[in-house]
Amino acid sequence: MKTTARALIAGLVLTLAAGTAWAVEADDAIEYRKAVFQVFKWNMGPMGAMAQGDRPFDREVLAKHAEQMARTADLPWQGYVDGSDLGDTASKPEVWTNRARFDELARNFEAQAARLLEVVNSDAGEREIRMEIGRLGQACRTCHDDFRISRR
Amino acid sequence: MKTTARALIAGLVLTLAAGTAWAVEADDAIEYRKAVFQVFKWNMGPMGAMAQGDRPFDREVLAKHAEQMARTADLPWQGYVDGSDLGDTASKPEVWTNRARFDELARNFEAQAARLLEVVNSDAGEREIRMEIGRLGQACRTCHDDFRISRR
Repeated sequence: MKTTARALIAGLVLTLAAGTAWAVEADDAIEYRKAVFQVFKWNMGPMGAMAQGDRPFDREVLAKHAEQMARTADLPWQGYVDGSDLGDTASKPEVWTNRARFDELARNFEAQAARLLEVVNSDAGEREIRMEIGRLGQACRTCHDDFRISRR
Repeated sequence: MKTTARALIAGLVLTLAAGTAWAVEADDAIEYRKAVFQVFKWNMGPMGAMAQGDRPFDREVLAKHAEQMARTADLPWQGYVDGSDLGDTASKPEVWTNRARFDELARNFEAQAARLLEVVNSDAGEREIRMEIGRLGQACRTCHDDFRISRR
């Protein structure tokens, strides 16, 4: 009995140590997801400016940014690991308490990024493309409204 | 003559204004490329730890990070725009004075990221995969040695 208990405890300690050793650190996860959103900003910035008429419509530039947006659209969410609700983050606790809705908006965003790329690569006109950029911006905002602390 | 000169100047001012309006800001470009490298770190970290035996070899985790690494490997370089040698950056001036070599190392890095993904998805053994991770780390270092100011 004594040996069994000791073995069990030793096993538990090893398991905990292992869990600690290669669990993702919350700070690293926060830093990571912020970095992905910076990459989004790099791509959304010029597209948003074109959609709003603040920058001339340039199909080639759009195609590049829409492709990069679609290619990276699924990357942020893996950064919302357990424990990363605390730290240098603007995420609301709702990310963790209402994950189903968060995931739904994430899928919606990814779908809209794919949709924009499709439209940019089609023979769609400027007006339609602008509307799709607007819809992608709206997909950002919808999620920010519910899951991100406003900086305003 | 007077009208022509005035028109020329007006045209020039418009051109300059236009150039300013949608040229990429150096600070944005620096922020962007740093963000991409943070994303690299997120993927390289666990792979490097596995290659060095600091973390148990986990083929599923590896496959995810190798895929994300290969998918984003070409993203940083567009951030090295003219004028972004100055600012909050660790880039050496050589990025701009020896761009041919910089580009060569960038292509080498992309090729090695693609190669790692290929090997991870093959029936290659742990030893071979670890070596390929090491080669990708070496591709990082080779470029850092010549083009990044050491923080040590």
